[in-house]
Amino acid sequence: MELILNYIGIIGSFALAISGALTAMHKRFDPFGVLIIAFVTAVGGGTVRDIMLTGKTVFWLEQTSYIYFIIAGTFFAVIFRNKLGYIQKPLLFFDAIGLGLYTIAGVQIGISFELSPIICIILGTITGSFGGVIRDIFVNEVPVIFKKEIYATVSIVGGAIYLTLYKLGVSNPLLQIVPILFIIITRLLVIKYKISLPSIYAKE
Amino acid sequence: MELILNYIGIIGSFALAISGALTAMHKRFDPFGVLIIAFVTAVGGGTVRDIMLTGKTVFWLEQTSYIYFIIAGTFFAVIFRNKLGYIQKPLLFFDAIGLGLYTIAGVQIGISFELSPIICIILGTITGSFGGVIRDIFVNEVPVIFKKEIYATVSIVGGAIYLTLYKLGVSNPLLQIVPILFIIITRLLVIKYKISLPSIYAKE
Amino acid sequence: MELILNYIGIIGSFALAISGALTAMHKRFDPFGVLIIAFVTAVGGGTVRDIMLTGKTVFWLEQTSYIYFIIAGTFFAVIFRNKLGYIQKPLLFFDAIGLGLYTIAGVQIGISFELSPIICIILGTITGSFGGVIRDIFVNEVPVIFKKEIYATVSIVGGAIYLTLYKLGVSNPLLQIVPILFIIITRLLVIKYKISLPSIYAKE
Repeated sequence: MELILNYIGIIGSFALAISGALTAMHKRFDPFGVLIIAFVTAVGGGTVRDIMLTGKTVFWLEQTSYIYFIIAGTFFAVIFRNKLGYIQKPLLFFDAIGLGLYTIAGVQIGISFELSPIICIILGTITGSFGGVIRDIFVNEVPVIFKKEIYATVSIVGGAIYLTLYKLGVSNPLLQIVPILFIIITRLLVIKYKISLPSIYAKE
Repeated sequence: MELILNYIGIIGSFALAISGALTAMHKRFDPFGVLIIAFVTAVGGGTVRDIMLTGKTVFWLEQTSYIYFIIAGTFFAVIFRNKLGYIQKPLLFFDAIGLGLYTIAGVQIGISFELSPIICIILGTITGSFGGVIRDIFVNEVPVIFKKEIYATVSIVGGAIYLTLYKLGVSNPLLQIVPILFIIITRLLVIKYKISLPSIYAKE
Repeated sequence: MELILNYIGIIGSFALAISGALTAMHKRFDPFGVLIIAFVTAVGGGTVRDIMLTGKTVFWLEQTSYIYFIIAGTFFAVIFRNKLGYIQKPLLFFDAIGLGLYTIAGVQIGISFELSPIICIILGTITGSFGGVIRDIFVNEVPVIFKKEIYATVSIVGGAIYLTLYKLGVSNPLLQIVPILFIIITRLLVIKYKISLPSIYAKE
């Protein structure tokens, strides 16, 4: 279990580092600025989660492997940034992968701390999306999570799916794969078809 | 005491959730964006306080009732947003209530951790105002707390009043009611009459 | 050792409080807004470091002396703000001193927690530069650390110098003075001669 969490986390950090580095290069930050944005995007959500849990060590302080995967993701983004330009919205693609992997990692940690279901889902959403929120704040933009396309909603529903499967006694790898794929695929469909939540401002 | 703190905290979270939801709707965020801004506004200050205190569990992780009051406050703001438009500056009104209640909750927790008076006052100000600071950062605005109208000052003075009454041996409910009302009423007067601190830029 | 850390920290907080207060006055914040920006600039980096380290008390909660030095730094900046205007970029000067002192304080705390070298360097960079990052976010600007002039890089190299000297068995005061002076002098040279990292956007 701990091993699977690490595996998820490291792939998630690689994907989110790419998402962060692409955002920073779009803003033409200097090389170390790009690395720092990649770093906060990749570890920001999990760090906020860990500092809120009493007695939980911040995950990357004692698992140096994260740092190397973040540096690798940053190099990947810098080297292939022109190639990545050909893919439609590569930033949102890597962001979706990170959202899926990290949301489930967050929910799992909430369960291991025996927190109530609603708090587990909130922890999942924080883990999955707050790295991107910090990224957007650092580059002085309104966080993409609050914009029209459905974002936090997907993370919340994905977390609820995980919890439901968990209570039904579904075991790994299905327990993890279903909600992770749900989040990634839904996010990509939402982006492709520009699906929005029903506006609450319609009549104004 | 613990009970009174909870009572204060829950009303404060309801008021600050309304303040956050109104800000987010003003920016035309999607429904879940509105809920998230309501959430960080309501719990942001107390969360920053709790993660700074070694051994203190972040209050809302184990008291799920907060979540429901925040959701209720968000629904209240969404449903009555047109009605609330008739009240002058409803955002600032609910913000003032939250500032009063949360400042005193923060000072009380500082006292229970046996911190020095000046640190207790700072914890009160952080608890009372950092939710609003995070709200404003999330919507990409300069935090209202730094603008001309007296804000942090009221929280600091209110915290000092609580500490003075506490040292004088005044007991509840007077101990809490006096500084809470002081903060709320002073903030409302400050807004109504546009009172500012003396400018330090006068001669420039 | 603990004593030297305190000494470094207090001078650093004085310098960073001046840097924060100058930024806030440039934005024409009210007096308490200036004090709060000075406060978060001075303690922000060390606070982020301390809340990430399990079992570490946030340094200023139990060392009230920091608060007084921050208030003193704020008064210094307010009183001499016209005089400071004659010095070229006084903000960046005090910022450089804070960066040097705090980076080394952060690396030292990482060593005392027996963290790996790369994590010690990251902790140093966070301690040295995140106060400024929070300052810039609070005044709604893109953090100066990400702009063209070399900033985080200097902190990272300075931290690496400290670790190298430490492993070589160099003792205090040389162990501390060399990397601190390296950071301060390099930052000032970088500012004076507008040295930048090689751009990664050259061909675009």
